[in-house]
Amino acid sequence: MSNLIDDLKALIRIPSVSTDPAHSQDVAAAARWTAERLQAAGLEQVAVMPTAGHPLVYGEWLHAPGRPTVVFYGHFDVQPPDPLDLWTSPPFEPVVRDGRLYGRGASDMKGNLLLAVVACEALLKAGQPLPVNVKFLYEGEEEIGSRSLGEFVAAHHDLYACDLAVSADSLQYGPDQPALLVGLRGTAGIEIDVRSAATDAHSGLMGGLLPNAAQALAHILAALKGPDGRILVQGFYDDVRPVSEDERAAMAALPDDAESIRQSAGARALAGEPGFTPRERNWIRPTLDINGMWGGYQGAGGKTVIPAEAHAKITCRLVPDQDPAKIATLLQEHVLRVAPPEVEVAVRARGGRSRPYVVPADHPGLAAAERALAAVYGRAPHRIRMGASVPATTILREELGVWTIPFGFGLADENAHAPDEFVRLSSMERGQAAFGALLKELGAMG
Amino acid sequence: MSNLIDDLKALIRIPSVSTDPAHSQDVAAAARWTAERLQAAGLEQVAVMPTAGHPLVYGEWLHAPGRPTVVFYGHFDVQPPDPLDLWTSPPFEPVVRDGRLYGRGASDMKGNLLLAVVACEALLKAGQPLPVNVKFLYEGEEEIGSRSLGEFVAAHHDLYACDLAVSADSLQYGPDQPALLVGLRGTAGIEIDVRSAATDAHSGLMGGLLPNAAQALAHILAALKGPDGRILVQGFYDDVRPVSEDERAAMAALPDDAESIRQSAGARALAGEPGFTPRERNWIRPTLDINGMWGGYQGAGGKTVIPAEAHAKITCRLVPDQDPAKIATLLQEHVLRVAPPEVEVAVRARGGRSRPYVVPADHPGLAAAERALAAVYGRAPHRIRMGASVPATTILREELGVWTIPFGFGLADENAHAPDEFVRLSSMERGQAAFGALLKELGAMG
Repeated sequence: MSNLIDDLKALIRIPSVSTDPAHSQDVAAAARWTAERLQAAGLEQVAVMPTAGHPLVYGEWLHAPGRPTVVFYGHFDVQPPDPLDLWTSPPFEPVVRDGRLYGRGASDMKGNLLLAVVACEALLKAGQPLPVNVKFLYEGEEEIGSRSLGEFVAAHHDLYACDLAVSADSLQYGPDQPALLVGLRGTAGIEIDVRSAATDAHSGLMGGLLPNAAQALAHILAALKGPDGRILVQGFYDDVRPVSEDERAAMAALPDDAESIRQSAGARALAGEPGFTPRERNWIRPTLDINGMWGGYQGAGGKTVIPAEAHAKITCRLVPDQDPAKIATLLQEHVLRVAPPEVEVAVRARGGRSRPYVVPADHPGLAAAERALAAVYGRAPHRIRMGASVPATTILREELGVWTIPFGFGLADENAHAPDEFVRLSSMERGQAAFGALLKELGAMG
Repeated sequence: MSNLIDDLKALIRIPSVSTDPAHSQDVAAAARWTAERLQAAGLEQVAVMPTAGHPLVYGEWLHAPGRPTVVFYGHFDVQPPDPLDLWTSPPFEPVVRDGRLYGRGASDMKGNLLLAVVACEALLKAGQPLPVNVKFLYEGEEEIGSRSLGEFVAAHHDLYACDLAVSADSLQYGPDQPALLVGLRGTAGIEIDVRSAATDAHSGLMGGLLPNAAQALAHILAALKGPDGRILVQGFYDDVRPVSEDERAAMAALPDDAESIRQSAGARALAGEPGFTPRERNWIRPTLDINGMWGGYQGAGGKTVIPAEAHAKITCRLVPDQDPAKIATLLQEHVLRVAPPEVEVAVRARGGRSRPYVVPADHPGLAAAERALAAVYGRAPHRIRMGASVPATTILREELGVWTIPFGFGLADENAHAPDEFVRLSSMERGQAAFGALLKELGAMG
């Protein structure tokens, strides 16, 4: 355990901020450090592999014929540490206080990244074979949307061929409440451009004559989602697969965190689709959000113009069995249907399209992970979902045809992406034991 | 006439761009030039008078006891010349081509400003008394909203005491169609700030949980004006004074310019309140326009956020007898009434508030101006309105209690505020004659 923490400190000291070009050498250094650590653990064919962006690290141990092959996924890049003045101690100078290790990447996910390595090392150093074949896929671009990962994995199908993946980029539900993150939402998006005239016009000289692009856009946006939170796009909910009453009951049985979410967000009230609990709205129901909208004058004071153009960016989060391409088309059609006829409206489907992702409930890897967590925590894990999307899981599903079992030991309160990020030493200890148990359970998997 | 054009060229050469601090010495130079020109014309007590902003120019001739006193209003500042590359010849190097004098300020309103001066000069140099008492009020801030004028006139009530004002900052309807601009609209405005959370949130992790400030604002904006163009603010139309069928018939008898307005604006269609012609929507009906709105991410690509705040600037154009303060209150109340309860909404009344302005149809000054124009053009002028607001007319009404008779000779196609601004030499010629006639008619005014 003390070696694990020393390793983690060493890795945190490398400021591998992937979004900042000034830190690209640090991301490369983190890749080298990780590769050396894999090598030292006894893994084979270890390599730092270049991509169009930051490099990936590969390593393998393939001496368990007839046993499953598992890809361990993780990332060694981190979020920027800003705002620096809100950190109690410097982000890249790891320090332990009160049973917590503070530093950027401590929770997301330099600690988690090491757990699979030390679990393999423990067996290999003891001269024991691993219960499964393993391949490591550790990337340096997760915090910038895994930009290069899809193309890279597509170009290396054979190298990463496997039976399932395990992602340590995940969470537990509480210090004593294990969880398996079995569902993520997909995404689809559009951009809307409204034009009402060649140029902005004087709101006095032309007021009452010309259409107003901002007003037209407001009408379009109001026609996408009702004030009650229900999405009005025709056909939007058609392919939403009903969630079983059992799963809804299991979700309802989880501790109610709605009020704490509201408070920490600083919101007057939570809001969303009628007929569903806040957790259901976030986990099993699709959403539509305006990410940005703008038109006309935004400066200080007033400017009496009729804006000639107005724009909006919109993304949806999708659930099974919604298809991102179909949803983008439904959005486009709906916008054109509700657009005021006196303005020109262009709608484009936009990036980040991904499918909703729910690991089949009867996947044997989930059962294996469940047993491993139960053995360590003394209780069966919750099966939870998350409202966000994780590119890697979708990429591994689409490129390699495998499901990813979530197996990470951070907690939601550990300030990932924020100042004073930390990880509980107790979580690392449990994680180390759990990864050892997971290797055995995967080896015994039917 | 050739002297008038030479004078006009000299004044155009001074780049008196009031909005640009780099040109403040030029605005001061234009004030001095104007004062010297008034002095040379035989006017008395000529002075350049400082204000909190750019200076004003005063001059008078008060030797017509028992006759009316007239304030001639105008401005010697101009709009910026940008974009420079669209000018055929440099904006501040006046040149005559095909009977038109090109240069910034040629039409708006350095030519018009000189007409009253030369009309007085013609009589004074011939040793004849003026038929009325005159005072000149020429300012240097019209193009920046006459910022200092209200306070200045309020502090100089006695100096500007008069029976009526004449503004040369006006238009004729066509090269052979004289007009009197008898109505301007007022303004009232609000700014709306919506807040849904303390900070922008991740649209995946928080999508379905948190309200979206941009979505809430879109609903508010859509509830202010229907897609058909009718304003939905409760009580908004209550104080709109009906316009007589006679006046509507006179408006309908004017040449129909709707299609040419649509074309020159580059709009797919005109739009506005149902039940009124485009001209009526612009002249005699109030309007509501979003001048600007914004919230969330506006950069390239996508950013999957739920915006925590969104904003809009809105102004209305008002007609008699709408009261700007009351309308601002109605707007505020309506916004708060329709705002989704889960977000915080602040509404502030904002600047530029002015009353609608319609010169009483039986004002003797209008009749005098009508006779003067008829004498020069050979036909009676149209009585027209304009959708915009002119601060000076409202200020003179409120501070001095007088109405302003419009008497200017630009035309709407002369690129005021745009590249290649010009004035027709024929308009200047007619204007010179008309101002002479106006002086006589005002002197004979009952």
